[in-house]
Amino acid sequence: MAQKPSIPKGTRDFGPVETVRRNFIFDTIKKVFHRYGYQPIETPAMENLSTLLGKYGEEGDKLLFRVLNSGDFMAGYPAASEVPDPANLLPFISEKGLRYDLTVPFARFVVQNRNDITFPFKRYQIQPVWRADRPQKGRYREFFQCDADVIGSDSLLNEAELVMLVDEVFSALGINIVVKINNRKILAGIASYIGYPESLIDITIAIDKLDKIGLDAVNQELMLKGIPADAVSKLQPVLNMQGDSVAKIQNLRQIIGNNETGNTGLDEINTLFGFLEQMKPTMPYELDLTLARGLNYYTGAIFEVKALDVQMGSICGGGRYDDLTGVFGMPGVSGVGISFGADRIYDVMAEKQLFPETTAGSTFVLFLNFGADEVAYCIPSIALVRKAGINAELYPDADKLKKQFKYADQKLIPYVVIAGETEISAKVFTVRNMKSGSQQNVPVHEIVEFLQDIAEQTE
Amino acid sequence: MAQKPSIPKGTRDFGPVETVRRNFIFDTIKKVFHRYGYQPIETPAMENLSTLLGKYGEEGDKLLFRVLNSGDFMAGYPAASEVPDPANLLPFISEKGLRYDLTVPFARFVVQNRNDITFPFKRYQIQPVWRADRPQKGRYREFFQCDADVIGSDSLLNEAELVMLVDEVFSALGINIVVKINNRKILAGIASYIGYPESLIDITIAIDKLDKIGLDAVNQELMLKGIPADAVSKLQPVLNMQGDSVAKIQNLRQIIGNNETGNTGLDEINTLFGFLEQMKPTMPYELDLTLARGLNYYTGAIFEVKALDVQMGSICGGGRYDDLTGVFGMPGVSGVGISFGADRIYDVMAEKQLFPETTAGSTFVLFLNFGADEVAYCIPSIALVRKAGINAELYPDADKLKKQFKYADQKLIPYVVIAGETEISAKVFTVRNMKSGSQQNVPVHEIVEFLQDIAEQTE
Repeated sequence: MAQKPSIPKGTRDFGPVETVRRNFIFDTIKKVFHRYGYQPIETPAMENLSTLLGKYGEEGDKLLFRVLNSGDFMAGYPAASEVPDPANLLPFISEKGLRYDLTVPFARFVVQNRNDITFPFKRYQIQPVWRADRPQKGRYREFFQCDADVIGSDSLLNEAELVMLVDEVFSALGINIVVKINNRKILAGIASYIGYPESLIDITIAIDKLDKIGLDAVNQELMLKGIPADAVSKLQPVLNMQGDSVAKIQNLRQIIGNNETGNTGLDEINTLFGFLEQMKPTMPYELDLTLARGLNYYTGAIFEVKALDVQMGSICGGGRYDDLTGVFGMPGVSGVGISFGADRIYDVMAEKQLFPETTAGSTFVLFLNFGADEVAYCIPSIALVRKAGINAELYPDADKLKKQFKYADQKLIPYVVIAGETEISAKVFTVRNMKSGSQQNVPVHEIVEFLQDIAEQTE
Repeated sequence: MAQKPSIPKGTRDFGPVETVRRNFIFDTIKKVFHRYGYQPIETPAMENLSTLLGKYGEEGDKLLFRVLNSGDFMAGYPAASEVPDPANLLPFISEKGLRYDLTVPFARFVVQNRNDITFPFKRYQIQPVWRADRPQKGRYREFFQCDADVIGSDSLLNEAELVMLVDEVFSALGINIVVKINNRKILAGIASYIGYPESLIDITIAIDKLDKIGLDAVNQELMLKGIPADAVSKLQPVLNMQGDSVAKIQNLRQIIGNNETGNTGLDEINTLFGFLEQMKPTMPYELDLTLARGLNYYTGAIFEVKALDVQMGSICGGGRYDDLTGVFGMPGVSGVGISFGADRIYDVMAEKQLFPETTAGSTFVLFLNFGADEVAYCIPSIALVRKAGINAELYPDADKLKKQFKYADQKLIPYVVIAGETEISAKVFTVRNMKSGSQQNVPVHEIVEFLQDIAEQTE
């Protein structure tokens, strides 16, 4: 009967330590979302395939996890002769899929609930998504996304407030970051200026590789993509541009200032940077033309957040999109959003040892169990300690003390209360600091206050 | 292109109001879990079918949502001639299923991580589960379970502390409850005493119907199940038993006291009630022999929580089980657990209007937007207000005031800050109470303190 249990590849269990730490990240982000007026929604794990298919490109369609119709799943299948060609079978046996991201379900939610929603609609959503990607280090088949979007407002104040929100999240987590900002319209202006507007994506992908492969290789790649040498040479001032964001914007204005789209992009960046100057984020931010994230999707601002002092890709990113809900029959809804990469943030915090030693979720004090009488002596105090907001445990069995202390050790419980015969006759508790090993007698009626005091000091 | 979007039947979207309220319930429960030393874990939504199949009975197997193998899902299929018999096809095209409850994944987790776990292991888990049940009012295909279990300890202190935990959760939520307690060993003792130990389940199912169908119908049903009249008549003192829990226990001791199992059950109940007398829960608790919940599963204590003053089934339940992990090759692990029914708790709280009007997640103040200069005037104060821990929004567009006020109204934002030309020249803000309509001028440098004061008063 016995099976050797395992979990599907690419999925993970999270034990207590990891879950507490992950919740610390999510709770911090949620608190800041609330601070900026974002409200949570939740959508089902399963969506109709008609909602999901065709939204993520051909590759995305392949990576959807499809759920078999329940009951007699072959019931809808028309003719035995057509089996077993999967292409024939699939539409008949599966009508639902697991959500692939939070954006498409959000768009579907907005369209479905358009009459009940107050616009501008600021929502956040923290839920798992599933992708049948080949599992590898840092890439999972189930992972959480953590998105905030505001839709139904074109104001660049939204972009500026999102940068502030990002700034506040990472300040609270203790991660030093730089916020990189770009604008698709500037990139479009550049592509237009060199005479190859249709090559926007190729150009930005090439620019994106500048840091990794160097200028020569980028130029070569551009020519391989069919952009002639004279156009590539027109691009050189952009690729070679130095200086801070303000200088770059001025430079670009001279280079692509005649292009309407490019100019609009520069205006937008200018306005955004103007707001940020007033809002004063604590972390650095900069214009980064090599930022080409999600270009087939974003239409205005593009954000990316990199952790400083750590080798790690982007830990947060987002941008403005012009038509979130059009595919579901509700055109003209513009929005801007940001997505936090929980797994990478976790890795950065683990590497830099940024997780707090104790969190709101940990047990602060363990009452040892010496038997029925001693337990009876402890019970009223445990109730009062808990009532005072302190997380407390009573060890359930009168096990050997060594085992009970080991329990406290392994659960990282900082204080242990001992109540044996001696303590009972003296009407005290012995409180042991598990780290230092020091012990102290505390009268029964003072135990709550005593623990409260040290709990406050540890905070 | 446009599709009319919808979600799979039996699933739900949760909008902002519902999500905030659901989170209020989950956060309250989590806080109490932490207070009693339970630590969170999370397991993947998908489990291997080998983990899930055969754990929920034949009916349960049918209700599993199965996930199609990704990629070429027909690749493993052996011979075209055997298609399309679903019984043949299924094992080849699907190896994973969505989790059906949290108990089996927990058991799998414990066995897989046995060497890293400190026993007794107190864990909680709040995650969605999926069942392909026929959807109906109050029954969904995706719903959250909210479980706490302690395993690796036989002490009845665990049962007592779980009752206290339940008491504290419902006190915090403001729901009046009664905790009904039974013990399978008592029921086994009763079945044994009338000479039909093998009819334990039939007898308890019949007893369970006592309230609904009355004594005569119960007796009839017992006889229909093959229990002869003299055995049924031996059962009458049990069915007719009156009085409080203590009286019932004494009565039962006289009736079934010679039966070893029954006696053990009565001892356990006695010990548990003894602990509870010391621990003093605020809500009532009682022995209820008609409690037959999960009898094919629980081996000792059985709990069920009913809300008072509301027509609603059980909102929480649990019990002790002797062999959680045996099926995965780790025998002899005893545990006791409790599960909160989030959907029903939500319904009780909605019916009794127990949700707080504002929660930690709501926006407290909206700064209106009169244009660029006015926004610039507001920005530094908004930053300070947020830094003071107050949830604040800046309306992103210089829309008509009517629209901005409507936004505050619909989002239930209690205060609005107005800063037009007049306010700027006087270096004040006008703060409007959205409920009363009253307005007040507040100097710019006092706005944080002012809002903090009213925020504290509203708490």
